[in-house]
Amino acid sequence: MRKEMILMAVLASILIVLLFLLAGAASSGKGDDALVAYPENYREWFHVKSMVIQEGHPLYDPFGGLHHIYANKLALRAMEEGKPYPDGAVLIFDLLEVKSGDDAIVEGSRKLVGAMQKDSKRFAETGGWGFEGFRGDTKERMVSDPKNACFACHQSQKGSDYVFSQYRN
Amino acid sequence: MRKEMILMAVLASILIVLLFLLAGAASSGKGDDALVAYPENYREWFHVKSMVIQEGHPLYDPFGGLHHIYANKLALRAMEEGKPYPDGAVLIFDLLEVKSGDDAIVEGSRKLVGAMQKDSKRFAETGGWGFEGFRGDTKERMVSDPKNACFACHQSQKGSDYVFSQYRN
Repeated sequence: MRKEMILMAVLASILIVLLFLLAGAASSGKGDDALVAYPENYREWFHVKSMVIQEGHPLYDPFGGLHHIYANKLALRAMEEGKPYPDGAVLIFDLLEVKSGDDAIVEGSRKLVGAMQKDSKRFAETGGWGFEGFRGDTKERMVSDPKNACFACHQSQKGSDYVFSQYRN
Repeated sequence: MRKEMILMAVLASILIVLLFLLAGAASSGKGDDALVAYPENYREWFHVKSMVIQEGHPLYDPFGGLHHIYANKLALRAMEEGKPYPDGAVLIFDLLEVKSGDDAIVEGSRKLVGAMQKDSKRFAETGGWGFEGFRGDTKERMVSDPKNACFACHQSQKGSDYVFSQYRN
């Protein structure tokens, strides 16, 4: 009887471990596969260029302010060489509020961090790029329909692998 | 006779080598010591922040346009920790022309690359910082009187080791 109880306890433990493993696989599997990872440490990446979008601009509503573009190493190399971006390339659109006045435009707080992540299989439907926006200084996701909210516009840049920015010195 | 000619040729060669060595020592010695080194690869350094200086601003004449501040690793660490900058710290003021219109401000060509290099002994007269400007995309030096042209204004920031920029995420 005691032997059987020990056996059942062992079996139950194995079952619990298996359930945890399955749950883990599910949460890092199909579900998250559709998501762009938060770009940790992007502020240390290569600064590509910057631009100010002002009131009256057609993109003022989502993107008004001063934005900086950053590229990770894979993205930078592709951009420098003018080649298609490899899987793993990430580009950042870091949008800050602006404070204008005294004949100067200075940076305000962060509005959003946009990210494009290349994975030709996972994001095959949108040119091989996954698109996401993270609100302000948080990791709160903003994009529910990347195809219409992001790719619709990036599609115009098919000749440069859907990327607007060009490399500059 | 032939022996003497060989001896004289050898002595002449030694003299020429010595003259070259002396010339080399002079150009990399006292003279260059007063100069800030051209900041090779600064475009790969940490992007600290950016700002647009517009017409009407008191600094428009020298610094009108969009400028980006970059920091090398030593400068970045000091800035993050709010500590005085160690020797070897370099900060860059990368000034670009701006093209305004269509409710946007975009980057134009480079006007100058300003550099502050910390060396408390060499630049003791100007707060331990050497100041230089390099014209456009060249290495042509622009600053002949750093004390009046640069330090006079940076002196107001003594509390932050003569640096205007503050660290931000």
